[in-house]
Amino acid sequence: MHTKITGTGCYIPKVIQTNNDFLDHKFHNSDGSEIVGDSKIVIDKFVAITGIEERRYVEENKVTSQIAYEAAKQAIKASGIDAETLDYIIVAHNYGDIKHGTIQSDTVPSLASRVKHLLKIENPYCVAYDMMFGCPGWIESIIQAHAFIKSSMAKKCLVIGAETLSRVVDPHDRDSMIYSDGAGACIVEASEEDDKGIIAHKSASFTYDEVKYLFFGGTYDSESPSKTQYIKMYGRKIYNFALTHVPDAMKACLDESGYNIQDIKKILIHQANEKMDEAIVERFYKLYNQEMPKDVMPMTIHKLGNSSVATVPTLLDMILNDKVEGHQINEGDVVIFASVGAGMNINAIVYKF
Amino acid sequence: MHTKITGTGCYIPKVIQTNNDFLDHKFHNSDGSEIVGDSKIVIDKFVAITGIEERRYVEENKVTSQIAYEAAKQAIKASGIDAETLDYIIVAHNYGDIKHGTIQSDTVPSLASRVKHLLKIENPYCVAYDMMFGCPGWIESIIQAHAFIKSSMAKKCLVIGAETLSRVVDPHDRDSMIYSDGAGACIVEASEEDDKGIIAHKSASFTYDEVKYLFFGGTYDSESPSKTQYIKMYGRKIYNFALTHVPDAMKACLDESGYNIQDIKKILIHQANEKMDEAIVERFYKLYNQEMPKDVMPMTIHKLGNSSVATVPTLLDMILNDKVEGHQINEGDVVIFASVGAGMNINAIVYKF
Repeated sequence: MHTKITGTGCYIPKVIQTNNDFLDHKFHNSDGSEIVGDSKIVIDKFVAITGIEERRYVEENKVTSQIAYEAAKQAIKASGIDAETLDYIIVAHNYGDIKHGTIQSDTVPSLASRVKHLLKIENPYCVAYDMMFGCPGWIESIIQAHAFIKSSMAKKCLVIGAETLSRVVDPHDRDSMIYSDGAGACIVEASEEDDKGIIAHKSASFTYDEVKYLFFGGTYDSESPSKTQYIKMYGRKIYNFALTHVPDAMKACLDESGYNIQDIKKILIHQANEKMDEAIVERFYKLYNQEMPKDVMPMTIHKLGNSSVATVPTLLDMILNDKVEGHQINEGDVVIFASVGAGMNINAIVYKF
Repeated sequence: MHTKITGTGCYIPKVIQTNNDFLDHKFHNSDGSEIVGDSKIVIDKFVAITGIEERRYVEENKVTSQIAYEAAKQAIKASGIDAETLDYIIVAHNYGDIKHGTIQSDTVPSLASRVKHLLKIENPYCVAYDMMFGCPGWIESIIQAHAFIKSSMAKKCLVIGAETLSRVVDPHDRDSMIYSDGAGACIVEASEEDDKGIIAHKSASFTYDEVKYLFFGGTYDSESPSKTQYIKMYGRKIYNFALTHVPDAMKACLDESGYNIQDIKKILIHQANEKMDEAIVERFYKLYNQEMPKDVMPMTIHKLGNSSVATVPTLLDMILNDKVEGHQINEGDVVIFASVGAGMNINAIVYKF
């Protein structure tokens, strides 16, 4: 039994937040001290490392479950299935629905329940749940759908990754420029036709020393009396962690798949940070004594930023719809999906289209 | 391949909140109007319906992931396994960690990552994730662990349900008296020994009309300027919904299991509300033209209230440790686990001990 992606969709929020929109921000260091001088210098350094020129934010009247629904609708349409035949709806996210101007995460009912409601699905045996696994949540949800399919508990699953990080950013933190909003979705189905679909997968959670590399913390503006918590990261630690562990996980997954490094046509990696992503993939090829091939790693981070769980499914949908210049996925292509994020979690899938 | 529970644990918070502690509360109706007269009358009516005399709250310095850890530690000890051999840690919850005196849900990193960190597990291939499925989250997580075991993706899983509802209650809402805090956990393992373990399971999500029967909403005190959101429910709608759908789901599960109604020794049902739980189980037996047997339904709600995902694993752990007077589970006993909650979600498992 194979697990195949039969339709994809994404929702790219409408509000474009450029780097210039951060020019009047007062950035502080993590110790609270103000970064003196021109914000332009901070921003130029930021672009050089992350590659991010713009990011997308949802409009004020939207929340995560709504953009999850928009992506889901497209994926269902693309797959051609009747939504009433879905066995599972899995929504990967990390902060729930946070309305504009508020700080509370709304997760009851689950976002999956909300999406199912918006899709007007009546079948009660379409089971809707949310899962949280940091940025690798969407890939992990695909692996969970695969488990349901392999164990004959499901034939068709809708798997969504959706996040509105714009609702949890500290404007005084340079890292706030990384975060973006978005949603991506796909339909996976059981298939016995051929050798296509998920070939191998690997997941890991590093929590002994790494549990708080990404965390919820107060503003870096030490003069602010606010107790509001925001998404926070130790960027340098994450960079070193990712370079140490992600290539190994990808290699373990590829070796298990039975394919060779030369068989890999594309690597769809979580759009975390351009320099980090490049360094990960370069090191992955180095494990096979290879140079990283040109054009193996499509990137959308320049214009879309890091939308957590949404980056990989959005990237996939865009490639399949010919919206990433110079990148295509053709029938028979073997690709790797990979991600790293809060937890710290890592995962990878080797997939044959 | 069977999935067997090999160890259980629970954490019962220390702070006892009695009904008398609500005597000075000013209760309001959902339309904002104040309920005039003695709170004692409101409370007496509340006890008559729900059976709840006391509930438990965590101490001010504790959060959900910490009590999840306490329950997990016990379950691991009871099972006798080496925690390093765990393939999955699944934490079912609905509100994350909310510190005393704050209103934000902290879910990054996942509570499962925090538990794994506290357990000092080093093995990175022990995958830790959170799931949200309303009150039926713990039973659903057991079903997910079963999927991993059936599909050969896991042999040993730690499944935890933990919640601190005391952090999301509106003091002006009579329903606030229902909610409690708690954590329950178990170890499930793959087994080929005999016919014991999970025999059948059933899950359903009703979202077409029911999605907002439990929701996040403002205080019932219409004079309050606060925008804080709390757990809210349409109690009457939930009651009718549960009576209509839960007995059917339990019957579908039992019929699939191949066992007869006479084989059922105990029904461990989510401790939602005593009258509702009794009515559900009575109606379940009526579907087989049977009277509900005395002592088939152990209850802890009188002293422990409704701690969401934690009620069923806590009840199980207490029975197995001889802490529920007049109730025992012996080898060979067939029991039903069942739950209903936000989503609206329903699930059931037929399990042979």
